[in-house]
Amino acid sequence: MKNEVLQFGKKLREVRLKKGKSQDDVAKVLGVHRSYISGLERGKRNPSLLTVHKVAKKLLKKSFF
Amino acid sequence: MKNEVLQFGKKLREVRLKKGKSQDDVAKVLGVHRSYISGLERGKRNPSLLTVHKVAKKLLKKSFF
Repeated sequence: MKNEVLQFGKKLREVRLKKGKSQDDVAKVLGVHRSYISGLERGKRNPSLLTVHKVAKKLLKKSFF
Repeated sequence: MKNEVLQFGKKLREVRLKKGKSQDDVAKVLGVHRSYISGLERGKRNPSLLTVHKVAKKLLKKSFF
């Protein structure tokens, strides 16, 4: 996959680990399957604008993470 | 469609018109159909991360626009 998608996935993993959360935690908050989070982190999925927005919003929401 | 997609579309149209370009011009540069640009501008399409990146990159590329 393209570099932009890889960068997004790398950042997602970095933030998730920094918050001490599992892929399952993130999946539940976003309402998606864990394998989708795994695919995002490995840069295998090209998320839509709405997904990128949802990830950013939820990851930054302190009450959740 | 959700607000984020509508905002993206609005911005795309704004930048395109400011540069005096047609939807067809943008479509050609991006290698997509004009109806897809129309859908994006009306907030009817939820573009992928790679599409958002491509749009941003091409729109900012002064040699093209």
